[in-house]
Amino acid sequence: MNSERLCRVLDTMKKDGIEQMVITNPHSIHYLAGHYEEPYERFWAFYLNQDGRHSLIANRLFTLDEVTGTEILWYEDGEDGVEVLNTCIAHQKPLGVDDGMTAKFLLRLMELNAAAGYKLSSCCMDSVRAHKDKDEQDRMRRASAVNDAAMAEFKKLIHPGVSEKEIVDQMLAIYKKLGGEKFSFSPSVGFGGNAANGHHEPDDTVLKYGDCVLFDVGCVADGYCSDMTRTFFFGEAKEEHRQVYETVLKAQKAAEAAIRPGVPLKEIDQVARDIIAKAGYGKYFTHRLGHFIGREVHEKGEVSSASPLVAEPGMIFSIEPGIYIPNEVGVRIEDLVLVTEDGVEILNHYPKELQIVASEL
Amino acid sequence: MNSERLCRVLDTMKKDGIEQMVITNPHSIHYLAGHYEEPYERFWAFYLNQDGRHSLIANRLFTLDEVTGTEILWYEDGEDGVEVLNTCIAHQKPLGVDDGMTAKFLLRLMELNAAAGYKLSSCCMDSVRAHKDKDEQDRMRRASAVNDAAMAEFKKLIHPGVSEKEIVDQMLAIYKKLGGEKFSFSPSVGFGGNAANGHHEPDDTVLKYGDCVLFDVGCVADGYCSDMTRTFFFGEAKEEHRQVYETVLKAQKAAEAAIRPGVPLKEIDQVARDIIAKAGYGKYFTHRLGHFIGREVHEKGEVSSASPLVAEPGMIFSIEPGIYIPNEVGVRIEDLVLVTEDGVEILNHYPKELQIVASEL
Repeated sequence: MNSERLCRVLDTMKKDGIEQMVITNPHSIHYLAGHYEEPYERFWAFYLNQDGRHSLIANRLFTLDEVTGTEILWYEDGEDGVEVLNTCIAHQKPLGVDDGMTAKFLLRLMELNAAAGYKLSSCCMDSVRAHKDKDEQDRMRRASAVNDAAMAEFKKLIHPGVSEKEIVDQMLAIYKKLGGEKFSFSPSVGFGGNAANGHHEPDDTVLKYGDCVLFDVGCVADGYCSDMTRTFFFGEAKEEHRQVYETVLKAQKAAEAAIRPGVPLKEIDQVARDIIAKAGYGKYFTHRLGHFIGREVHEKGEVSSASPLVAEPGMIFSIEPGIYIPNEVGVRIEDLVLVTEDGVEILNHYPKELQIVASEL
Repeated sequence: MNSERLCRVLDTMKKDGIEQMVITNPHSIHYLAGHYEEPYERFWAFYLNQDGRHSLIANRLFTLDEVTGTEILWYEDGEDGVEVLNTCIAHQKPLGVDDGMTAKFLLRLMELNAAAGYKLSSCCMDSVRAHKDKDEQDRMRRASAVNDAAMAEFKKLIHPGVSEKEIVDQMLAIYKKLGGEKFSFSPSVGFGGNAANGHHEPDDTVLKYGDCVLFDVGCVADGYCSDMTRTFFFGEAKEEHRQVYETVLKAQKAAEAAIRPGVPLKEIDQVARDIIAKAGYGKYFTHRLGHFIGREVHEKGEVSSASPLVAEPGMIFSIEPGIYIPNEVGVRIEDLVLVTEDGVEILNHYPKELQIVASEL
């Protein structure tokens, strides 16, 4: 058990008036209890109570042995794990549950009259996980260092006649060679107009002279995720494409420069959005500026006009403005950043200036 | 919209007394509406009503255009998709929800007083998806054909000095060369005692003379999953290991031979379990005999002593008995099978007889 993290979660619960809660997100359980289990359809939960009674509810088929600082309540296939959880719950009080708890388990809790009401309480975990401790910061730096090194290799895969799929197919081996464990998400590779489509799946599209080449890629290393985007050009960058690129770059750098403790994240979003709007591309920047990241590639918390959050030391999120002109060009530039005591540390170091890959070998 | 599938789901709902339900499993939505969307934290749902009013609730950032036979109700980031769903619901009636609907959306529905009660109704979808139609059967055959061909290639990777990880690292490229799209699950490769540990992750363990080599592997092809296990021996198979192998093989074949419409799945489980118990290995067969499979590698429905199901034409599931002697040897043999009108079609054709891979090249 990581008791420092547990104390922070219990403190947050106290502030939110949550006496007891049940956590089912396996990454959150891992974060606290030090054991990762992918339970698939089985029940795997961590019950926390302000009074110090904490219990893991686990299936006998799981691989954990024991966890210091908490009891483990076991059940077997054919038995009902939710009933086991129910033996821990203070029935006359409300129960916090996390956002991702599934209806199969939540409706069963309700059927058992487990608690006096159910309250979404993921925020108690999420706000703690949003502030990375020193160990996590080091892991995030290492994961992004692998991503920086990988981007340099990915650029070398850009050559005449190559398809998006052919590039994607080589990426995992490159990550593994550099110390990554696996992808943190399915890599996005888009040529030309494909890069303007946010949901484009890499396909057999062959690279053409003058195409932009967008790589949005990341790996897991040391249990933490990296995530970076760079956009190259092949052969040449047309004048309008250069303008798009330079606008995105300016917005990206300005947003990063605006980060320090105390600044609302929606203001950081606005900095980037204003620059892009002023250049006349406002309607082509169609998404939030960034998202939190750590053990999962998308963690709770975003950098957007709707974000209620303020930058605080230890937060790590992406800064990724983009301009997408349908069927023509898509440019996005993305780094991960860590809010420090007095400013910001940018976790990615791969160059951001416009790079044109020669069209002849 | 696949109206034949939709009719089957509506029929099942009718039988179960469900007038309206909401489906959030993206594979189930894909199955009916023909569009796959991975919504991450966003709301993506399909509302079905016996009266013929069906609605997809979709975020503007999703990639779908239109779907014949149903309206699409759009919302944008910052808007509440559940409120949009709420406009469709008959509030004075109960609402079916699927097992995997998350608390974030379910508690919001309850807060909105969307319905007169909530009932787990995944079974209406799952029982339809469990019966594969002709198109699905063809896709499943093709996915398993790729898996058969891949197993022959994987066997060639067994050689002196190789580690589990080194084998796993080559598997994806082999699948892709043979027409697979991606893994259907993270491959399991275990040497010797590792094969006896159901949760073993492939690691740097190096192959030793006399080891068993267990491959539990599958790919996605044509949108459908394959899943097969074979266990080889390296150099030699000791007498006791042969006994283990022959017992598993006998159980596996007998279970397959017992399959025909009308047979309860728990009886098929019992056939395999009896053979293994009679040979004295009962306590080493620690899991259910099989699971359903299709678009997802584990679909609802199992072949186990607790299964209420009876074999029916169109069902596809795995038959995978195993014997695991801790720290010594693990043998599992697994095929996918399709229940036909009068018996069974085995979808895997890779040989099951004991194979010893020579320890010298």
